[in-house]
Amino acid sequence: MATIKPPLNPEADLRVKAVFDDIRATRKTDFINNFWKALANDPALLARTWGLVKATMAPGALDALTKEMIYVAVSATNQCNYCLASHTEGAKAKGMTPEMFAELMAVTGLANMTNALAGAYRVPIDKEFL
Amino acid sequence: MATIKPPLNPEADLRVKAVFDDIRATRKTDFINNFWKALANDPALLARTWGLVKATMAPGALDALTKEMIYVAVSATNQCNYCLASHTEGAKAKGMTPEMFAELMAVTGLANMTNALAGAYRVPIDKEFL
Amino acid sequence: MATIKPPLNPEADLRVKAVFDDIRATRKTDFINNFWKALANDPALLARTWGLVKATMAPGALDALTKEMIYVAVSATNQCNYCLASHTEGAKAKGMTPEMFAELMAVTGLANMTNALAGAYRVPIDKEFL
Amino acid sequence: MATIKPPLNPEADLRVKAVFDDIRATRKTDFINNFWKALANDPALLARTWGLVKATMAPGALDALTKEMIYVAVSATNQCNYCLASHTEGAKAKGMTPEMFAELMAVTGLANMTNALAGAYRVPIDKEFL
Amino acid sequence: MATIKPPLNPEADLRVKAVFDDIRATRKTDFINNFWKALANDPALLARTWGLVKATMAPGALDALTKEMIYVAVSATNQCNYCLASHTEGAKAKGMTPEMFAELMAVTGLANMTNALAGAYRVPIDKEFL
Amino acid sequence: MATIKPPLNPEADLRVKAVFDDIRATRKTDFINNFWKALANDPALLARTWGLVKATMAPGALDALTKEMIYVAVSATNQCNYCLASHTEGAKAKGMTPEMFAELMAVTGLANMTNALAGAYRVPIDKEFL
Repeated sequence: MATIKPPLNPEADLRVKAVFDDIRATRKTDFINNFWKALANDPALLARTWGLVKATMAPGALDALTKEMIYVAVSATNQCNYCLASHTEGAKAKGMTPEMFAELMAVTGLANMTNALAGAYRVPIDKEFL
Repeated sequence: MATIKPPLNPEADLRVKAVFDDIRATRKTDFINNFWKALANDPALLARTWGLVKATMAPGALDALTKEMIYVAVSATNQCNYCLASHTEGAKAKGMTPEMFAELMAVTGLANMTNALAGAYRVPIDKEFL
Repeated sequence: MATIKPPLNPEADLRVKAVFDDIRATRKTDFINNFWKALANDPALLARTWGLVKATMAPGALDALTKEMIYVAVSATNQCNYCLASHTEGAKAKGMTPEMFAELMAVTGLANMTNALAGAYRVPIDKEFL
Repeated sequence: MATIKPPLNPEADLRVKAVFDDIRATRKTDFINNFWKALANDPALLARTWGLVKATMAPGALDALTKEMIYVAVSATNQCNYCLASHTEGAKAKGMTPEMFAELMAVTGLANMTNALAGAYRVPIDKEFL
Repeated sequence: MATIKPPLNPEADLRVKAVFDDIRATRKTDFINNFWKALANDPALLARTWGLVKATMAPGALDALTKEMIYVAVSATNQCNYCLASHTEGAKAKGMTPEMFAELMAVTGLANMTNALAGAYRVPIDKEFL
Repeated sequence: MATIKPPLNPEADLRVKAVFDDIRATRKTDFINNFWKALANDPALLARTWGLVKATMAPGALDALTKEMIYVAVSATNQCNYCLASHTEGAKAKGMTPEMFAELMAVTGLANMTNALAGAYRVPIDKEFL
């Protein structure tokens, strides 16, 4: 199904094992989802991508749930089916209620609508925004 | 500059005036930004779009700032220049700090990156997500 | 301003001149818009692109105005500023009224909104549509 | 399969039933497609979205078939699989012939191609278009 | 599964047969992939599209493998599942190694990330680039 | 012009100075383009983004010019004006000729066209590609 078959035993490569171990420790779970297995074909890309995800998604000025919802909004805009499946679950696990999901959807849909309108009307930016 | 020149005196049309009055009352400001003036060419589209924005962006299960940040994330993904200018200001007005903006950017950028990767590898959805 | 400066005198290349002459004859105007001047840097790409535009945009099962409006809808979705400027003018020249433009905008905005929703909910395709 | 399982008996909620009844009356069919069932998780989002679809897709300055084809063009650009399935059927039901579909595809494909070219060459907008 | 069922015996139409014969001759294979069968519903669109593909993808100033990889990068950005399946195979057939694929992915992911950042920050173009 | 004004003297922050020094050393130039100055508002995001760019764009299984051209193809698809300006210059500096640019454009345009077609026809993936 995947474009590139992931390695049968990815953790035989110690660089992959180190990343997978860190994913398990960071997320406090044994579950490694298919995205990481796909990237295991290239340990350098895997390590860089996980490093970026770990640094970016950790709670900071924004909490972890807000970050997951932003991820879902981008993934809906890009029609990324896998990312929608995984990050909606991620957001639910971090506390997103059905009401929050519905509002996330409403804002994401609205933004896509008005983006097209503002683009098509070629609305000049108000001096108040500069 | 705009595709369609907005009417010179849009509020001469009472349907437009009613919408602009509601924008001013809802936002507690006299400022009507160019997006609404552009839509004033078609009072029906203006009224429907404002109705949707008002209902969607009101605080509910998600607070108003989170909604603005979701808007910015979608607008960055779609490269909507006007929307980025207006909604970043909107988010700042609702309390977004520079640190929050930087994290919003980091998550938005990361999601666009991993969306492309998950799509290209055609990663099968884990049964755990179904 | 452009990424690649167009040639100062593009029609000195006879392959470019042949295309420009055909554009003028087909459109019954002396005006060659900047898109074609930009492509004149590569006469083969210019000739192939114009050939495709000429064959595709000619009225057939769909009339010329409907085709221009479809072009605008796609360009709004992609945020292509130049294409929005040129094809909105093209549609107006072919008879698009302000009312038609407003409805074109409304449908384009709506489709972008519901595309995001259908993607994010990962709605299964009804067996009735298969 | 869906991100959020739709309610088993959505019309037990009277707000959902009212929307579904209006869909059936407007479309003169008993068939409620999965998109609306997915949105039934949030009756407010369902009602707003249906209200917008009903107002936007009704024939006006543009006929209903032209509107469906514009929808398909946007959905192809966004790669929205569900929307392509449902709105291509919608267009066929409103009279789209195979010849019209082929021309719709040709224009949609061409616009996506030239959008990328105009963007990449950063073509300056002709003064004639301003 | 497809939006429009391809004709059962497409080569009964001699215009389709001519294109399919040229695909087989150009690619030195008997295999006609489903994309071309889908387009066979409209022989004119099929012929124009194949003509463009043949002219564009032939090695020239860029070699055939580089062209396939550019195709994959665009298809990943657009989330075109079919195109990712077919053109990744095309690139492998032309010599793309797993290491090259991983770097293609890395650049494609990075470009999508920084596109969003540059858009959102509305970075002014340096005078050095003009 | 920018959404967020870059700091007046970004290198007063030693974390920013370290990144800028590395950009200058890696690229063997004193020129720091505006993208990096914009990111200097958040030294952590700046450092992570530069680290990713440096690791990803270094020549490896793909040469530096091929990587720049892939970047341009993605940026054209996303309509990222800044990225098109900067990375087209980057590609020229690494040896891209006008003929190569024209072919890059041709492939990028074609891929965007056929992506839309394959999506809209919902072409099933050939078993030969699985």
